[in-house]
Amino acid sequence: MARFLKDRSKAKGMVPGSLVLIGRQKMVNPVIQLIRFNKDELYEETSESFLEVKEKCLSGHVNWINIYGLHDLEMIKQLGEEYKLPSLLLEDILNTDQSPKYENGDTYDAFIMKILHQEEGSTRIHAEQITLVLGENYVLTLQERKGDVFDVVRERIRKCKGRVRSSGNDYLAYALMDALVDNYSILIENIGRQVEDMEDRLFTNMDAKIVEEIYKFKTELNYIRKAVRPMREFIASLLRTEDTFFQKKNIAYLKDLNDLIIQCTEAVEMYNSMTSDQLNIYNSNMSNRMNEVMKTLTIFASIFIPLTFIAGIYGMNFDYIPELKFKYGYLVFWVVILLLGGGLLIYFRRKKWL
Amino acid sequence: MARFLKDRSKAKGMVPGSLVLIGRQKMVNPVIQLIRFNKDELYEETSESFLEVKEKCLSGHVNWINIYGLHDLEMIKQLGEEYKLPSLLLEDILNTDQSPKYENGDTYDAFIMKILHQEEGSTRIHAEQITLVLGENYVLTLQERKGDVFDVVRERIRKCKGRVRSSGNDYLAYALMDALVDNYSILIENIGRQVEDMEDRLFTNMDAKIVEEIYKFKTELNYIRKAVRPMREFIASLLRTEDTFFQKKNIAYLKDLNDLIIQCTEAVEMYNSMTSDQLNIYNSNMSNRMNEVMKTLTIFASIFIPLTFIAGIYGMNFDYIPELKFKYGYLVFWVVILLLGGGLLIYFRRKKWL
Amino acid sequence: MARFLKDRSKAKGMVPGSLVLIGRQKMVNPVIQLIRFNKDELYEETSESFLEVKEKCLSGHVNWINIYGLHDLEMIKQLGEEYKLPSLLLEDILNTDQSPKYENGDTYDAFIMKILHQEEGSTRIHAEQITLVLGENYVLTLQERKGDVFDVVRERIRKCKGRVRSSGNDYLAYALMDALVDNYSILIENIGRQVEDMEDRLFTNMDAKIVEEIYKFKTELNYIRKAVRPMREFIASLLRTEDTFFQKKNIAYLKDLNDLIIQCTEAVEMYNSMTSDQLNIYNSNMSNRMNEVMKTLTIFASIFIPLTFIAGIYGMNFDYIPELKFKYGYLVFWVVILLLGGGLLIYFRRKKWL
Amino acid sequence: MARFLKDRSKAKGMVPGSLVLIGRQKMVNPVIQLIRFNKDELYEETSESFLEVKEKCLSGHVNWINIYGLHDLEMIKQLGEEYKLPSLLLEDILNTDQSPKYENGDTYDAFIMKILHQEEGSTRIHAEQITLVLGENYVLTLQERKGDVFDVVRERIRKCKGRVRSSGNDYLAYALMDALVDNYSILIENIGRQVEDMEDRLFTNMDAKIVEEIYKFKTELNYIRKAVRPMREFIASLLRTEDTFFQKKNIAYLKDLNDLIIQCTEAVEMYNSMTSDQLNIYNSNMSNRMNEVMKTLTIFASIFIPLTFIAGIYGMNFDYIPELKFKYGYLVFWVVILLLGGGLLIYFRRKKWL
Amino acid sequence: MARFLKDRSKAKGMVPGSLVLIGRQKMVNPVIQLIRFNKDELYEETSESFLEVKEKCLSGHVNWINIYGLHDLEMIKQLGEEYKLPSLLLEDILNTDQSPKYENGDTYDAFIMKILHQEEGSTRIHAEQITLVLGENYVLTLQERKGDVFDVVRERIRKCKGRVRSSGNDYLAYALMDALVDNYSILIENIGRQVEDMEDRLFTNMDAKIVEEIYKFKTELNYIRKAVRPMREFIASLLRTEDTFFQKKNIAYLKDLNDLIIQCTEAVEMYNSMTSDQLNIYNSNMSNRMNEVMKTLTIFASIFIPLTFIAGIYGMNFDYIPELKFKYGYLVFWVVILLLGGGLLIYFRRKKWL
Repeated sequence: MARFLKDRSKAKGMVPGSLVLIGRQKMVNPVIQLIRFNKDELYEETSESFLEVKEKCLSGHVNWINIYGLHDLEMIKQLGEEYKLPSLLLEDILNTDQSPKYENGDTYDAFIMKILHQEEGSTRIHAEQITLVLGENYVLTLQERKGDVFDVVRERIRKCKGRVRSSGNDYLAYALMDALVDNYSILIENIGRQVEDMEDRLFTNMDAKIVEEIYKFKTELNYIRKAVRPMREFIASLLRTEDTFFQKKNIAYLKDLNDLIIQCTEAVEMYNSMTSDQLNIYNSNMSNRMNEVMKTLTIFASIFIPLTFIAGIYGMNFDYIPELKFKYGYLVFWVVILLLGGGLLIYFRRKKWL
Repeated sequence: MARFLKDRSKAKGMVPGSLVLIGRQKMVNPVIQLIRFNKDELYEETSESFLEVKEKCLSGHVNWINIYGLHDLEMIKQLGEEYKLPSLLLEDILNTDQSPKYENGDTYDAFIMKILHQEEGSTRIHAEQITLVLGENYVLTLQERKGDVFDVVRERIRKCKGRVRSSGNDYLAYALMDALVDNYSILIENIGRQVEDMEDRLFTNMDAKIVEEIYKFKTELNYIRKAVRPMREFIASLLRTEDTFFQKKNIAYLKDLNDLIIQCTEAVEMYNSMTSDQLNIYNSNMSNRMNEVMKTLTIFASIFIPLTFIAGIYGMNFDYIPELKFKYGYLVFWVVILLLGGGLLIYFRRKKWL
Repeated sequence: MARFLKDRSKAKGMVPGSLVLIGRQKMVNPVIQLIRFNKDELYEETSESFLEVKEKCLSGHVNWINIYGLHDLEMIKQLGEEYKLPSLLLEDILNTDQSPKYENGDTYDAFIMKILHQEEGSTRIHAEQITLVLGENYVLTLQERKGDVFDVVRERIRKCKGRVRSSGNDYLAYALMDALVDNYSILIENIGRQVEDMEDRLFTNMDAKIVEEIYKFKTELNYIRKAVRPMREFIASLLRTEDTFFQKKNIAYLKDLNDLIIQCTEAVEMYNSMTSDQLNIYNSNMSNRMNEVMKTLTIFASIFIPLTFIAGIYGMNFDYIPELKFKYGYLVFWVVILLLGGGLLIYFRRKKWL
Repeated sequence: MARFLKDRSKAKGMVPGSLVLIGRQKMVNPVIQLIRFNKDELYEETSESFLEVKEKCLSGHVNWINIYGLHDLEMIKQLGEEYKLPSLLLEDILNTDQSPKYENGDTYDAFIMKILHQEEGSTRIHAEQITLVLGENYVLTLQERKGDVFDVVRERIRKCKGRVRSSGNDYLAYALMDALVDNYSILIENIGRQVEDMEDRLFTNMDAKIVEEIYKFKTELNYIRKAVRPMREFIASLLRTEDTFFQKKNIAYLKDLNDLIIQCTEAVEMYNSMTSDQLNIYNSNMSNRMNEVMKTLTIFASIFIPLTFIAGIYGMNFDYIPELKFKYGYLVFWVVILLLGGGLLIYFRRKKWL
Repeated sequence: MARFLKDRSKAKGMVPGSLVLIGRQKMVNPVIQLIRFNKDELYEETSESFLEVKEKCLSGHVNWINIYGLHDLEMIKQLGEEYKLPSLLLEDILNTDQSPKYENGDTYDAFIMKILHQEEGSTRIHAEQITLVLGENYVLTLQERKGDVFDVVRERIRKCKGRVRSSGNDYLAYALMDALVDNYSILIENIGRQVEDMEDRLFTNMDAKIVEEIYKFKTELNYIRKAVRPMREFIASLLRTEDTFFQKKNIAYLKDLNDLIIQCTEAVEMYNSMTSDQLNIYNSNMSNRMNEVMKTLTIFASIFIPLTFIAGIYGMNFDYIPELKFKYGYLVFWVVILLLGGGLLIYFRRKKWL
C-alpha cells in the first residue's frame, strides 16, 4: 500500500473547499477534549459534541480543545463557523495527506503537521496528520485517531510544571509543537543508533539481510524527512512573520524549536548519507568475497584439471603406449605430477592469489 | 519515437511569430465549445466556427470557450484578432512542445500547461499541451484533441456545485487548473503505489523484469516532472505578480493550488529517489545471489575435482602400480578420499561458505 | 584532440588585448558580406575589403555586415577603429575558445556565441565561435569560416517575410540569435530521439556497443551544454539590462528567445540524466545475464562433476574392488547415479535456480 | 552506540528550559578555574564552588572562568542567576548534544561548540561540547570533563606572549575559539594525510582492509563536518552581527578565524569526495582482478576439459574400439591433443585473454 | 605525503599574528628583485636586503618588488613596518597553506594565490603560494622559491610591449594575475587533452592502467580546483568592491580576467565529470568482458563435463556392463555424444550466448 501518498481519488473533481475526509476512517465517534486552565484553575472535560465543549471555554483562560477523529463532517463545519475558519483550511484538515504547512490567517495561525508513530517491534513508521490552530484565546488540535505525544504536556499542565500554566495560548501551542519535534528526534535517534551499529556488522557479517535492513532505514528516513523538512521551512518562515499570535516574549522558545528541528533535519540527512555509504561498502565487501571465492575455485580447478588429464592419458587402452611398459613409468608420472602441481602453486603464489 | 521533444524541423527558419502547428494533427475540424453562465443562467453551444461562438459571449457572464483541435490556422488568427493576442502567443499555442509557462499580458493572462494521459493498461504517460487564456470576461482553453480532465468542472457548472457558478472568470480559470493538477497527483499516486509495492518484491523475487519496471517508473516520473516543475515555478511567480486578472479575494485558492503542486513535485522527487535506491538494492541483491551461486560451484568443484584426479590415477594402466596390488588398496583409497573430502568440507565451513 | 579546450599556448604571455587568432586558420582571405535594407530597398554586396563594405552602409537602413574568416588581423583592427570597439573585445573575437558571453558596451552590445555543426553521418558535434555586435545602426557578425545557420534569415530578408524588413537592427540581431538557438534545439532533439530509442534496445539487446553509444550521447550533450548554458545566463541578464540597443517594443521577442533557450538547457539536463539512468540499467541487466550464465555453469558442473568422480572410482584397477564383482553392480551404479543427479536437480530447483 | 546522536530520552517531556544533563556524567565534582589578568597582574585559582570564584572576579580585568563538569545543576543555576543567563541557554549548556550555534543575547554572546578528541592509536574521533559565554567583563567556558585544547592559550597568558594579556575579554574569547579551530585543522590534516597516502596503496594492494579504512575515514570526516559546518555558519553570521561584545578593532581576528574555518570545511569536503573516488577506484580494480582470475580459470578449464574428454574416450572398455588397435593410435592421439590445445591457445590469444 | 594540507603543527598554539613559516624552507637567502619603470625609464636591481631595495623605489614610477624565499622573518617584519601591513597579513604570507583569498586593506589590496607547477614528465601538479600586495605606489610579490610564471610580464616590461610600461601599478598587478591564470588554463588544457584522448582508449583497450590514469586526472583536477575556485570567488568580489587600488579605467581588464577564470573553473568541472563518466563506462565495459569470459567457460564446461561423464561410465571395470559387449556399442556411444553435444550447442545458441 502506498504509504507516501494516500488515495485521493475520492477527492477528485470535488469543488475546492468541499469537505471530504481523505485518509483512514477508524473512529466512529469523535472525542472532543477540553483542557481549560490559568495559573490558578484547571478544568477538563471530554465530550462528543463540539458545541457543548465550546460553551465551556472562557476568555482569559487557556482553552485547549483537542479533537480525535475527523469523520464527523458536521462537527468540522460547526468548528469552521464558530472560529471563522475558511473552508479551504477545513478541507486541508480533512485531507490528511497534506504536506506540513503553516497558514497565517487573520484570526488564527494554523499548523498542519505530522505525528510519527513507530509500530511496535518494527522500524516501520506511520504518520498521522495533526492540525493545530492557534487563535485569540484558544488552541485547537485535530487528529485522525487517539494516541498522541501530548501526554507529557498534559502532565505538565496538571502538575503545574514549568511555565505552561502561567503562560498564554501561544506558549501552549509552542509546547505542543515542541513535544511533537521531541518525538521526531527520539525516532531519528532510534534509527540512527541502528544505522551506527550497522557499522560493526558490515565488516564481520555478509548476511544478505543487511541490504534489506539498510533499505528499510533509508525508507524510514525518507518518510521522516517528509514530515520534518517542510516543518523546518515553516518554522523558519514563522520566525520571520510579523503578525502571528505568538507573543514577542515567547520568540526565544520558537528559536529553540527552530534549532531542534534543524538538528533533526541534519541528523536525517547525515544518517541517510551514512546508509548510502554503507550500501557502497557492502557492495565492495561483496566483491571482495566473490573475488576470494573465485580465486579458490580457480586454484583448485587450474591445478587438478590438467593433472586429471594426464592421469586420463595413462588410463587409455591403446594397444601400444610405450610409457606404460617403462619400469619406472609410474614413478616418473608422480614426479611429473608433483612438478606440474608445484609449478602451478608457485605461479599462483607469484600472482598473490595465495 | 522521441516523447520528450517533438519534431521542430517544420518550424526551423520560420519567421518568429509565424503560425505552424508543431505536434500531431489528428483532428480534421476543430470543435469549439462555449459554456456561458452566471449565477442564474447556463448556456452551452458547440460549433465549428469560432466567430459564431464568439458572438454568443455576453459580458457580465462567465464565458468559457474551449477549443479542441489546433490545425485550423485561420481560426487561430481570428482568435488572435478578436482577443488581441500577440502573434508570439499564438505561435506558442501551436507549438505544442512548449515547456509550461505563464505570460502576463496587458489584456490577458496566458498559461501554457500539459494534460497528462495514462495509456490504458500501461504505465506510459503522454502529454497534450493545453493553453488557458484568461481575459477581462472570457476564459479560453485550447487543446490538441478531444478528451480532457475538465469534465468534473463542467459537471460542477451544470449542477451548480460549489462556488463556480457564483464566481467570475478567474475562479473558473483556477478551477480548471486545479482539475489539471488534481489529475497530476492521481497519476503520481498511481505510479507511487507501484513504486512502494516494488519494495516487497525486491527481496523475494529476483526477476529481471524488475529492472525494466523500475526504469519505466523512472522514465514516467521524469516525464511528469517535465510538466509539473515549470508549473510549480510559474504558479509561485503568479502569486507574486500584482496586475493579473485573478481577483484578490481568490488568492487563497491560488495558494492552495500552489500547495498542491508543491506536494506533487516533492512526491515526484521522492519517488524518483526511491527508484534509484531500489535499483541499488537490486544490484546488491544480485551480487548476493551471484556470490551464493559461485560458492556452490566452488564447493562442488573444489571437492570433487581433486577426488576425481585420485580416482584417475588408479585407473591408469601402468604395468607397475604397487598400490593396486595391496590387499587393502581399495579400502585405503576410500579412507583417503573421505578424509580429503571431509577436510575440504571443514575448510569451507571455516570460511563460512557453508 | 581536445575538443573542449583549444590550444592557447600561442596566446600565452601575450599582452592582454593583443590580437592573436586562437583556433583553426582555414580561410586564406576573409569574405565580407553586406546586406543593407529597409522596408523598401535591399542591397547586397560581397567583398574582401572591410572598408569598402563599410562605405556602403547607410544610416536609417539596417546594415548587416557578416564576416567569414578571422585571420586578417589588419581587418580586425580597422573594424575596431571604425566602430570604436575596445581591444579586449577584438581579442575575444579572435580567441575562438571563449565561453559564450555578453558585453554591454557604451556604443555596442556584443554577443559571443557558438554555432554547433553536426558532422555528416555521425553524432559528433563541433562548435564554431560567432560574435555578434549590435550597434547604433549596424549588426556585425564574425565567424571562423563559411557555412552558418543564417540562410533562413537571409531568405526572409530577401523575400520580405515576417517583420524583419520593417524592423530595426535590434530585431535583426534577435532574428539571428533565434536562428542559432533554433539550430541548438534541432541538434538536441536529434540526440534526444536516439536516447529515447535506446530505451527499447536496452532490454532486448546486450550488445557492448550500447555502452559506447550512451557515452557518445553523454559527451555530445556535455558539449552542447557548454554552448547553451552560458547563453541562457546571458540572455537572462540581457533581459535585466536597461541600456541595451534592444528597443522596448522588441523585448517580447527576447523573452521568447529566453523561453526557447531554457527549454534547450532543460532538455539537455533531462537527456543527460536519462543516459545516466540507462547506463545503470545496462549494468543491472548485465549482472542479470552474468547471474544466469553462472547458474547454468554451476548446475552443469555441480551435477556432473560428482557423477564423473563415481564413474572414475569404478574405472580404477585395484585388484580387489568388491562392487565390480557384484552381479547387479552396474545396475546399482545407475540407480545411485540417477538418484544423486535427481537429488541435485531438486536441490537446485528448490533454490529457484531452475 | 550512537555517536552522532546522544540519548535524549531523559529529556523527553521535560518542560522546555528545564535543566537536565544529556550526556556522560563522569565527573563527581565540578572543577572551577579562574584566570584573572590584565597587562600587569595575573591571578589563578581553582575551586569547587562557583560563588567563591565569582567573588574573585574584578572589573577592568579579564576574568576567564573555566568549568569542567556539568553535573552540578545547583551550580548551573547559580551561574544563570549571577550572569543573568536565560534558562533556555542553561538547558542548551546541559544538553551536550546540541549542534554548534551562536546566540546573541542582550548581556552576553554565547557559543556552543565542540572539542574534538582523537582516541589514542585510532582514527576514532569523539566530540565534547564546550560552551563559551562572553559577557561585559567575563569569559565563561563550560566543558563536560577535564582535558581541553586551551593549554596553549593558558601558556600564552602566563608567559605574556602575544596580545592576549594586553587585550580584553573579547580577544580572549577569540583566542580560545582559534585554539579550538586550530585543533580541528590538525585532526583534519591527520586524516587527510592518511587519505592521500591511501592513493599509493590503492594500486598495489587489494587488501580488503582498505575498504574498511576508507569507510572509517568517511565516517570520521562526517563526524568532523558535524562540528565544523555549523561553526562556519555562525562565525559568518557573527561577522554580520552589529551589537556583539567583540570590539571593532578585533574584527580582523574574527575574519582570520573565518578564513581558517572555511579552509577546514573545504578540506573536509575535498577529503570526503576523495574517499568516494577511492572507493570507486577500488571497485574498478577489484573488477579487474576478478576478470583476470576468471580468465585464468577459463583458459585452464576450456583447454583441459575437452582434452580430458578425449582421453576418457580411449579409456573406455568397449569390446570394439578400432582406434585402439591402430599401430600409431597413441601417436595420432597426441597429435590431435596438441593441435586442439594449440588451437585453443591461439583462440584465446586472439581474444587478447593471454 | 599530504599534498592538499601542509603540516600546521608548528603553528599550533602560536599567538595569532605571530610569524612562523609553514611550508618548505628551501632557500637559504631571500632574493629581492626590484623592477622600477615608467614610460621612459627602466631600472632593475637584485639584492638580498629589502631595505636597500626599498630605498630605490620612486614615487611616480611603477615599483615592483618581487621576493623569492620567505624564511627571513626579520625581512618580513621590516616589510610589514615599511608598508604598514598588519601582522595577520604577514602571518598569512608565511603560512603557505592558505586558501587563495583577497583582503581589502586601507593602504593595500592583498591577494593570496597559488602558482601551479607541473612536474617534468608527470601529470602531478604542485602549488606554491604567491602573495601579491598592491599599494599606493608599489606592487609586492612574495614567493616561496625561485621559478615563476612572470617572465612573460618581465619580457613585456623590458621590451615595452603592450600597455604595461605606460600604465600604473594596478595594471601591473592585473598583468601578473593574468599571467597566473593563463598558466592555469594551460595546465587544465593539458590534462583536458589527455582526458579527451582517453575516450578512444576506453573502447579498444581494457588495460587496468586506465583506472589509475583516470584517478590521477581526477586528483589533479581536484588540486587545480582548490587553487582556482577561491580565486574565482575573490575576483568576482573584487569587481564589486568600491575602494580598491584598481582604477576605474582598468576595470575592463579585471572583467576579462574574471571571464578567463570562470572558463577555467567550468573546464575543471566538465573534465571532472567526464572522468567520472569514463570510470562508469570502464566498469560497464569490464562487466561486458567478464560476461564474455564467463560465457566461454560455461559453454566449454557445460558441453564437455557431461560428455566426459559418459566416457567415464564406459571406462568402468564392472564385470557385467552389457553395452560394452554390443557390436555397435562404440558407434552408438559416438552418436549419443554428438547428439548431446550438438543439442547443448543449439541450446546455447538459442540463449544467444554464441
